Amino acid sequence: MKVSALEIPITRTNQSRLPEVDFNNLPFGSVFSDHMFLADYYDGAWQDARVVPYGPLSLEPAAKVFHYGQEVFEGMKAYKDKEGQVWLFRPLENQRRLNKSASRLMIPELPEAIFMEGLKTLLRTDSDWIPTVAGSSLYIRPFLFASGNGFHASPSDRYTFVIATAPSGAYFAGEVHVRIEEKYSRAANGGVGYAKAGGNYAGQFYPTQLAKEAGFQQVIWTDDNTHEYIEEAGAMNIFVRIGDTLLTSPTSDRILDGITRKSILELAEAEGIPTEVRKISVSEIVEASKKGQLKEMFGAGTAAVVSPISGYGYRDERFDLPEVADSYATFFKKRITDIQYNRSEDPFGWRYPVS
Amino acid sequence: MKVSALEIPITRTNQSRLPEVDFNNLPFGSVFSDHMFLADYYDGAWQDARVVPYGPLSLEPAAKVFHYGQEVFEGMKAYKDKEGQVWLFRPLENQRRLNKSASRLMIPELPEAIFMEGLKTLLRTDSDWIPTVAGSSLYIRPFLFASGNGFHASPSDRYTFVIATAPSGAYFAGEVHVRIEEKYSRAANGGVGYAKAGGNYAGQFYPTQLAKEAGFQQVIWTDDNTHEYIEEAGAMNIFVRIGDTLLTSPTSDRILDGITRKSILELAEAEGIPTEVRKISVSEIVEASKKGQLKEMFGAGTAAVVSPISGYGYRDERFDLPEVADSYATFFKKRITDIQYNRSEDPFGWRYPVS
Repeated sequence: MKVSALEIPITRTNQSRLPEVDFNNLPFGSVFSDHMFLADYYDGAWQDARVVPYGPLSLEPAAKVFHYGQEVFEGMKAYKDKEGQVWLFRPLENQRRLNKSASRLMIPELPEAIFMEGLKTLLRTDSDWIPTVAGSSLYIRPFLFASGNGFHASPSDRYTFVIATAPSGAYFAGEVHVRIEEKYSRAANGGVGYAKAGGNYAGQFYPTQLAKEAGFQQVIWTDDNTHEYIEEAGAMNIFVRIGDTLLTSPTSDRILDGITRKSILELAEAEGIPTEVRKISVSEIVEASKKGQLKEMFGAGTAAVVSPISGYGYRDERFDLPEVADSYATFFKKRITDIQYNRSEDPFGWRYPVS
Repeated sequence: MKVSALEIPITRTNQSRLPEVDFNNLPFGSVFSDHMFLADYYDGAWQDARVVPYGPLSLEPAAKVFHYGQEVFEGMKAYKDKEGQVWLFRPLENQRRLNKSASRLMIPELPEAIFMEGLKTLLRTDSDWIPTVAGSSLYIRPFLFASGNGFHASPSDRYTFVIATAPSGAYFAGEVHVRIEEKYSRAANGGVGYAKAGGNYAGQFYPTQLAKEAGFQQVIWTDDNTHEYIEEAGAMNIFVRIGDTLLTSPTSDRILDGITRKSILELAEAEGIPTEVRKISVSEIVEASKKGQLKEMFGAGTAAVVSPISGYGYRDERFDLPEVADSYATFFKKRITDIQYNRSEDPFGWRYPVS
């Protein structure tokens, strides 16, 4: 299907909420821009691509999204540089991953043209909503869900695609201490852990709450069988630095193929940082801690970019991470955000202009 | 919280859809009754319990149910006997399980009074929708979901509880052949498999579709680690009869504590049928098949009650189940439906009158 920008009709709001927004005090993902992009799947095709005012969706109580969690999403950001040019970061990776997630949940794949032209049309329509305050960006949430009706536990015959956006500040505030989880799990072998499927996230809320009550901010997920290997950090990929080697777990059917994760690996290679993509055992981390070789741990994901971890708990012990002068986390965060905001060269071709 | 029946306001539809319904040709769960029950959680309490015409729900695109799968449901049925009396089957078990599911997904528990009084008020309002045609019943779908807004992956601050109903015929039609799954999985150790969480169902659609393409109707799920032990059949619990012994897998954090399952176990005990609740290996099933000792397999759940399995596939082999004269599946289905429809005594006290 070919969808040119001109074919996406735009219905503009007649009362912008922009004057109400305090761009100097933006929360994360809770102030929504004036417009959204919508498309619907029915009669076997994605159609009716359109930009409309952000507002309520109307769904029957029998819509399958409410019952069977047939829903996937992506997380992206738009950045505005000093000249007012708007940029995305590797958006085609999100488009491809959305479809990978969708396929696992039996949601019909969305054509690239609808995703990309819809996104660009929306960003042009709401370009005044893209923050310019340092550290802020426009968080973009594309999502696909089952909008057809029925209580039969089977795939829907109708789906809805939405892109909504929210000018946002930082995702995390303050120090992050994590607990290495040994009871609860995030994903099964042969399950949907690699997909950005809604159910993967709700399942984390309760174990995360237990961790918070014990004085941590996040959970480090381990494999559900042995709990010996670390897999993800909350809703992010995890990196560990032992000595000067950067380690991260391989992607699998349990682990999300994160775009920030793969960008960090490419940057590390270009920088000559020794990197190992392999299973990382908890005992190896604890041992490195005790020997003073565990220099850093950090989460990596679109929302937080790089989220340094200050300490971790494992069973009854707590370990602090040292302050390091030559922090990899700081280095990667700067390199990535410099590229995202067009403050540096882009040797990898990751920046994508929205014109 | 005390909610008496009188405190639930009822807004009646001014145009019933009842005359359009063909009660002799009811599908499963796709014709919806005139009314629904609603309650909302906000400011830290469940409130605004009400019966209103069945119709669209209005939600912001940022509602967390669309993104993080924070949603749980139950399945129940209402039966009308020859005298027109309406019955439920062990409804308090559903009420308790809904809250068990809700807790795992960090959804605030729903008071029993709201669940039960809401349900009874709704059934009284739509009592003409409860079918009397043999084999039909009113399928009841209570569900709870996150209706608060925000792109932050954390629990919602608002929730909605809905009960919607659908006069329904049989869930399955025709013979059921199942495939014992060795690649995909339904649930992780320490995950949410025991909860009726939406995401558990969407994750099954794709593997089930692959099974269908190979000539099966359903999947038998095995443990995600070794794939050596059977766990559930599609969206039902699984029973196996080897010789005259009835076997079913123990409930766990991966396996739903099914109400039909536990009713069958109680009936079997009362009937003197030898029963074993223990892990069941695939090799044991295949071996019993080859020796002619595998007499029956069946799924058990509210929607289908008991769903006999005609054959199964494992790796490259296919096995047929024999026709047996003294079928346990037939026996249990008759005993349970006789109790449900008030055609027999109810020695267990499972029937619950709606007056």
